[in-house]
Amino acid sequence: MMSELEKLYTRIIQRATINLRELEFDVKPYVWGLVSPSQMEKFYAFYGITTDHPINFHFKHSGLAGSYFLGQCQVINSLLYKSDVRGDELKQKGDVLKFDKFEIEVSKDEEIYIEDSALIKTMVHNYSHDPESLEQFFIKNTVSTHYANIHGAPCDGCFLEPFATVDLTTLHDCVVGAFSYIQAGEINHLNIEPGTIWVRSQGNFDFSYRYPQDRLMKYVCFTAGSQPQGVFLDFMEERKDEFQRIFDTMNLESPLSVPDSSSLDRYAVIDLKTQIGDNVLVAQRAFLKNSRLGKGANAQENCFVINSRLEGNNITAHGAKIIETDLERDVFVGFNSFLHGKPDSRLTIGNGCIIMPHTIIDIREPLLIPDNHLVWGLITDQKDLESNSLSIADVESIENGLKKGNMTFEGSGKSLVTAFRERIHHILEANGAFFDGKNNKGHAQKNQDISFNTIQPYPKGSLKGLYPTITIQP
Amino acid sequence: MMSELEKLYTRIIQRATINLRELEFDVKPYVWGLVSPSQMEKFYAFYGITTDHPINFHFKHSGLAGSYFLGQCQVINSLLYKSDVRGDELKQKGDVLKFDKFEIEVSKDEEIYIEDSALIKTMVHNYSHDPESLEQFFIKNTVSTHYANIHGAPCDGCFLEPFATVDLTTLHDCVVGAFSYIQAGEINHLNIEPGTIWVRSQGNFDFSYRYPQDRLMKYVCFTAGSQPQGVFLDFMEERKDEFQRIFDTMNLESPLSVPDSSSLDRYAVIDLKTQIGDNVLVAQRAFLKNSRLGKGANAQENCFVINSRLEGNNITAHGAKIIETDLERDVFVGFNSFLHGKPDSRLTIGNGCIIMPHTIIDIREPLLIPDNHLVWGLITDQKDLESNSLSIADVESIENGLKKGNMTFEGSGKSLVTAFRERIHHILEANGAFFDGKNNKGHAQKNQDISFNTIQPYPKGSLKGLYPTITIQP
Repeated sequence: MMSELEKLYTRIIQRATINLRELEFDVKPYVWGLVSPSQMEKFYAFYGITTDHPINFHFKHSGLAGSYFLGQCQVINSLLYKSDVRGDELKQKGDVLKFDKFEIEVSKDEEIYIEDSALIKTMVHNYSHDPESLEQFFIKNTVSTHYANIHGAPCDGCFLEPFATVDLTTLHDCVVGAFSYIQAGEINHLNIEPGTIWVRSQGNFDFSYRYPQDRLMKYVCFTAGSQPQGVFLDFMEERKDEFQRIFDTMNLESPLSVPDSSSLDRYAVIDLKTQIGDNVLVAQRAFLKNSRLGKGANAQENCFVINSRLEGNNITAHGAKIIETDLERDVFVGFNSFLHGKPDSRLTIGNGCIIMPHTIIDIREPLLIPDNHLVWGLITDQKDLESNSLSIADVESIENGLKKGNMTFEGSGKSLVTAFRERIHHILEANGAFFDGKNNKGHAQKNQDISFNTIQPYPKGSLKGLYPTITIQP
Repeated sequence: MMSELEKLYTRIIQRATINLRELEFDVKPYVWGLVSPSQMEKFYAFYGITTDHPINFHFKHSGLAGSYFLGQCQVINSLLYKSDVRGDELKQKGDVLKFDKFEIEVSKDEEIYIEDSALIKTMVHNYSHDPESLEQFFIKNTVSTHYANIHGAPCDGCFLEPFATVDLTTLHDCVVGAFSYIQAGEINHLNIEPGTIWVRSQGNFDFSYRYPQDRLMKYVCFTAGSQPQGVFLDFMEERKDEFQRIFDTMNLESPLSVPDSSSLDRYAVIDLKTQIGDNVLVAQRAFLKNSRLGKGANAQENCFVINSRLEGNNITAHGAKIIETDLERDVFVGFNSFLHGKPDSRLTIGNGCIIMPHTIIDIREPLLIPDNHLVWGLITDQKDLESNSLSIADVESIENGLKKGNMTFEGSGKSLVTAFRERIHHILEANGAFFDGKNNKGHAQKNQDISFNTIQPYPKGSLKGLYPTITIQP
């Protein structure tokens, strides 16, 4: 007999498939078997209680596995398996959002709303960038798989493959292939191939790159009926036990002390050879080994920094991996980028570089990226670098588009650079990089005093793996 | 400035004092300072999710410290500091309670309801024995101190001193002194001296004993303005760190395996030299060292069994301490009893003995209690034993009362023995001692699959140490 959990999973898959009927995409072969009931029982979920974020959680008829919640959130008829759902930037009543020439006032505190969805090891962060839905960051009838990243992107009726990121976007009834990065405004009824990097600001610019499918498969490969495979999955798998250890201990003492202006999440993995400077945020499920994070650097959820040096004001976005790499100041490393130097062939990235989301740099010889370059795509040597980068000055001079290797750019380079610069500034600000001891507090300062409450599912019977209805309010 | 937690504590103390105005008892000097805000922040509270007990928890404007909840419970405007609140025997809708010649049907699921109360390391268990309040086991405007035990005894406007037990009773506006045990039906406006043992069944019997105050002070002494002191407190204090260790670990693996018919709570302290037989219940916060628990024995909350042997069907009630002692079969050791043999002067208790609640046996020479004896009060040698025990046959033959040492008995001895025998049978049954692999399941079998959800208070600000509003439903 089917357990309630299996019935729920079946219903969610059916709903997502109905939404995707125009694309003739059947969700079930891709995901049935990816979440087994025993995985749902194995983990405890948790949520943060702070005085800096409004508390309002409501979980009903759901499996929450290892989720971690900050900021208000409703989860109804959904399965969340080891997901991170972080709502510490949700808009509050009275906030004003600028969109084009509009100034829109937020009429009530925003909440994350997840209904009839399955999020498998998925990170959800930030707030709804949909001007039509300011008060609700919704994810409905959506199935997303391993290490997908839904960042400010409300979606309904979607299927996200492993390591896919949707960013600042609203998606309706789309399939987003493995390792694709989509930041393209509102999109509908699209089936996006794996390894698509698409950054569009309508009327201003349109950047697109597609990974060579044969070379991408080495890193991530996802086919119907199989678990996802490749270097990325192996990399995560090899480090799984070190995470398990920190989740097994209640009230873990920090292994090393950090400056008063910095925060090291108790669910991060860190060793004693790592050094943390001022105004540094190390988020939950970050993994740091033998590395130095200078003033204002951050290490976001699911990122890895190993044998590396970050000089200061560096952004290590969700899921980025930085190994045997030296970052000068003000380097931005976008979501899920994989920067893989070797002990005898280190990667060095100069001041002010922008490593675009979902960039892979996997080298066998030392490689230097000069100051102030924009870098994208797949790079394994100096030759690849030349066809996958431009100096930022050169980008700014583009007025009517450019083609370079697998990359196509339309519109104004200046507006692309401006958009990135503004975003980078905002991320550093939100994370507390500019804190002066008094003003400009961000997550690095505000997230120091979180209490985590853990919750667990029914241990047996037909409801095994599901949670009771839980409501948490101030 | 007063924190919200201090304001709440002040209000609770004031309410209890107003209720006790006829007794001219001022609660504040006894308890102010016993709970400091930092103690309230140090612990996490938790509650159990099972499929065998109805889930319904509601916590509001309260500090919950280390409480553990099973079965439905509301806590409003209250401070619970390391309390155990176990509701796994609450009545359910449709149950029928027999009281005298009445058969009363329970109209809705019973809940524990704690309002405007402070429970400091207090155990609350069982269900309301008040026939006027079948659906609510209430504790209102009540302050109870270290290791008090509210067992089936609704109370309002009361003050309970350390190691006091109220049992199957309803109390209104009473003060119950340290180490007193009261099982006396409904009582009002009484100030009960420390060390009073009072077991009354109106119309049937009335047993009372009073500890010599000078000798009791060695074990527990509680005066206004001071922390409680004495052997009992030192005994608990010395073992505190071993408990801390098990609360520091999430999902602790059991150090030893127990039969399928038994349950060992993951929050019990136990060593590898201890052996657990079939149908054994080892409850949360029990402490077992180098001991053997035979078939159907139990070790309830806050009890200690050290270097001892329990042959089978033994009850170790809440807070009982059994050290260097051998218990033959069917021995009942009542609440908070302190059985203290020494390695070279062991205590041996024969088959079928009833050690009344709050008995102290603290010996320097070996002592044997013959089969089928009723034992009470303070015993340090053979001479004390003779004046503080009777064979059960002799008790049964009492028809019109008896005085013996500090003990006064009125009424029928047979009815006292019958009442105890029935209660003992019920306790063994409820705890699963009679489980035959199929029928007669009790806590030993039902409590094997509990998930514990932990919750923590606000970490800073004016609400520090208080919990948000938390509602948990099926």
